[in-house]
Amino acid sequence: MTYGDSRIYKKVEVIGTSSQSVEGAIQTAVDRAKKSLDKLSWFEVQEVRGHIDDTGKVTEYQVVLKIAFELS
Amino acid sequence: MTYGDSRIYKKVEVIGTSSQSVEGAIQTAVDRAKKSLDKLSWFEVQEVRGHIDDTGKVTEYQVVLKIAFELS
Amino acid sequence: MTYGDSRIYKKVEVIGTSSQSVEGAIQTAVDRAKKSLDKLSWFEVQEVRGHIDDTGKVTEYQVVLKIAFELS
Amino acid sequence: MTYGDSRIYKKVEVIGTSSQSVEGAIQTAVDRAKKSLDKLSWFEVQEVRGHIDDTGKVTEYQVVLKIAFELS
Amino acid sequence: MTYGDSRIYKKVEVIGTSSQSVEGAIQTAVDRAKKSLDKLSWFEVQEVRGHIDDTGKVTEYQVVLKIAFELS
Amino acid sequence: MTYGDSRIYKKVEVIGTSSQSVEGAIQTAVDRAKKSLDKLSWFEVQEVRGHIDDTGKVTEYQVVLKIAFELS
Amino acid sequence: MTYGDSRIYKKVEVIGTSSQSVEGAIQTAVDRAKKSLDKLSWFEVQEVRGHIDDTGKVTEYQVVLKIAFELS
Amino acid sequence: MTYGDSRIYKKVEVIGTSSQSVEGAIQTAVDRAKKSLDKLSWFEVQEVRGHIDDTGKVTEYQVVLKIAFELS
Amino acid sequence: MTYGDSRIYKKVEVIGTSSQSVEGAIQTAVDRAKKSLDKLSWFEVQEVRGHIDDTGKVTEYQVVLKIAFELS
Amino acid sequence: MTYGDSRIYKKVEVIGTSSQSVEGAIQTAVDRAKKSLDKLSWFEVQEVRGHIDDTGKVTEYQVVLKIAFELS
Amino acid sequence: MTYGDSRIYKKVEVIGTSSQSVEGAIQTAVDRAKKSLDKLSWFEVQEVRGHIDDTGKVTEYQVVLKIAFELS
Amino acid sequence: MTYGDSRIYKKVEVIGTSSQSVEGAIQTAVDRAKKSLDKLSWFEVQEVRGHIDDTGKVTEYQVVLKIAFELS
Repeated sequence: MTYGDSRIYKKVEVIGTSSQSVEGAIQTAVDRAKKSLDKLSWFEVQEVRGHIDDTGKVTEYQVVLKIAFELS
Repeated sequence: MTYGDSRIYKKVEVIGTSSQSVEGAIQTAVDRAKKSLDKLSWFEVQEVRGHIDDTGKVTEYQVVLKIAFELS
Repeated sequence: MTYGDSRIYKKVEVIGTSSQSVEGAIQTAVDRAKKSLDKLSWFEVQEVRGHIDDTGKVTEYQVVLKIAFELS
Repeated sequence: MTYGDSRIYKKVEVIGTSSQSVEGAIQTAVDRAKKSLDKLSWFEVQEVRGHIDDTGKVTEYQVVLKIAFELS
Repeated sequence: MTYGDSRIYKKVEVIGTSSQSVEGAIQTAVDRAKKSLDKLSWFEVQEVRGHIDDTGKVTEYQVVLKIAFELS
Repeated sequence: MTYGDSRIYKKVEVIGTSSQSVEGAIQTAVDRAKKSLDKLSWFEVQEVRGHIDDTGKVTEYQVVLKIAFELS
Repeated sequence: MTYGDSRIYKKVEVIGTSSQSVEGAIQTAVDRAKKSLDKLSWFEVQEVRGHIDDTGKVTEYQVVLKIAFELS
Repeated sequence: MTYGDSRIYKKVEVIGTSSQSVEGAIQTAVDRAKKSLDKLSWFEVQEVRGHIDDTGKVTEYQVVLKIAFELS
Repeated sequence: MTYGDSRIYKKVEVIGTSSQSVEGAIQTAVDRAKKSLDKLSWFEVQEVRGHIDDTGKVTEYQVVLKIAFELS
Repeated sequence: MTYGDSRIYKKVEVIGTSSQSVEGAIQTAVDRAKKSLDKLSWFEVQEVRGHIDDTGKVTEYQVVLKIAFELS
Repeated sequence: MTYGDSRIYKKVEVIGTSSQSVEGAIQTAVDRAKKSLDKLSWFEVQEVRGHIDDTGKVTEYQVVLKIAFELS
Repeated sequence: MTYGDSRIYKKVEVIGTSSQSVEGAIQTAVDRAKKSLDKLSWFEVQEVRGHIDDTGKVTEYQVVLKIAFELS
């Protein structure tokens, strides 16, 4: 990559979930994005939320993130 | 739907318009999204704007919203 | 274009770069969007950033912008 | 009410839902707050969201609002 | 209107009220602005608030909006 | 207090008023909170507003603040 | 004043200064607004800033505020 | 749960702490909320902060979050 | 100008356009404001937007800015 | 000072405290900054917070502010 | 530490990275700050971002945080 | 540079000015930062403001930006 060379990136907004951790939810979202998009480059966390079940346990982390990838 | 199961959602940002109401503009946007996307799940209003004609009448509500749908 | 006619727009978020200026980075992003999308209508600047090289020169402007286009 | 008299208000954050309209969801939330709180005074809308069913119809408006009431 | 022609707009911030609906409060504000300003062009909603009476009924919607008009 | 010991705090949002000063309005709100809550710990100012009477005098400062207290 | 009666307010943004206090700067701004506007109703503080002189003394408080007044 | 059925939720703002992790601080807060509230449904992270001890070690994560629960 | 002397400023919000650059759009807005207002003092950019024509060219920069002027 | 002369300023973020008032906390922070920095020019308040003691008295105002100074 | 004693804090903004976790990136940033600063007191997370490599794996968490320390 | 290697960056906030353009003000700020800091890496624009002289001409662009540099 060379700076100054008119690269273009696009960002998409996705929500990944994980029963384990914030990091797990991020990787889940990136994995899915990787299936349909090439040249993923970085992510930015927008929101961290989660589900609480009837017993008061956090059973799901939901991370809203933007994923940026280079357009060719 | 089961919480904790690594579901992934994507959000797209659209603007719907209606000459009648905020709710009408939302439904218009959702209708159009439904044509090309499956498993629409929820929306989030970002901005409410509108057009005013020469006689001072609000002739169009413009609602910017994010629509989330599940990726399979 | 007639107001009140249920037009629908979609916004995508892209990042354009230019070694010259903020305006250059905007046009670069719009040029690329034009390749794959029709009926581009307006843009909104979200962030202006840039790269600084080892000699302290700004060698790249990076503009994050939203580009709106009409859906038919 | 006299201004300058050390009145105190408290705000609570609630989410009302309605299958009909934004206004309906607001009134639903206020109705419920009224059951347990006295001297409700005003509300402030924080977010407007909603559910979309499988056929692409908006079946529920969800309005997050703050409701202020006077403490005696 | 031709784009690129150095048009200038000004925005004023007003609050309209209505006992009926958000849309009613917007139209009320626009009606009043129309009395003293020409060439009203669009509005942008800033806040939606309202009054609750002693019986727990929403008796007034208050919409803070910006109204833009062209300067000649 | 020992850091690392799973303390829990709750925040409530209140509005205090005073005819004298911002500090007076803060203390008024804290005084009232103290009546029904124990272990008040800190406050955070959210908004400063006020009433203006017919002669153009500021007759009331209204401070919206969050008050945090420890849950036992 | 009766709620539900289509009152309209306008907000203007002004900056008041005072060498003494935040409250002084607010009153200064309101005093000036009162000269050209009737029916001032409330203010909302937007920003608090100030000038520091060469000896490190705060010699001026600058308060950016919105002042709302009723339109007849 | 059926969408469109006038469910009402309330959100409270709490701060959980943990010497271990962000997730730990979230669960601590939810555990405490569960003691006094039924039907906890979801949480939203507002802020992540923490304490640093004299040796430069992060000894406490402090997570400010909103917890939503259904009102019956 | 002397700090500490109770100067008052007012801000107005205008939108300037230019087919050339962000700076051009700012100057256009300031030029127009100068026609009806004295003692313009500074501006603050709020938003940068623009129009894209059918060929994908940015034909208009639209800059929303606040212009401050001293009240005498 | 002459406008247009490539002056450069830097901003630092500090927190001042005072047992008396918001203004006192600001001056405390500016006093300390003055010890190590020259040419202090202005400040901008970011947050106003404070400590509440066991008896419910506000014993400390904490003001987070940015202080700007000219670089030579 | 005694409240009400004119303590002063300064905040610096740093970005820590870690290939493992958000917590790891925070500790990395705090470790580095500890080398040149005394009396570190707390941190506040501003942004969580990260790098994605060619295979779609999150290989680096980047946490932007503010670190506060007491000035003596 | 290798991702995943515990690099640390610091951001400082500076304000550059230029009588010519936004880009000029950015470069002025970066030039000054380069004098006292090594390994400048990127900048982020926070605000664009400017001075207007008595004839209504924009005589100075003021750009508030954050400059990030690597700590060794």
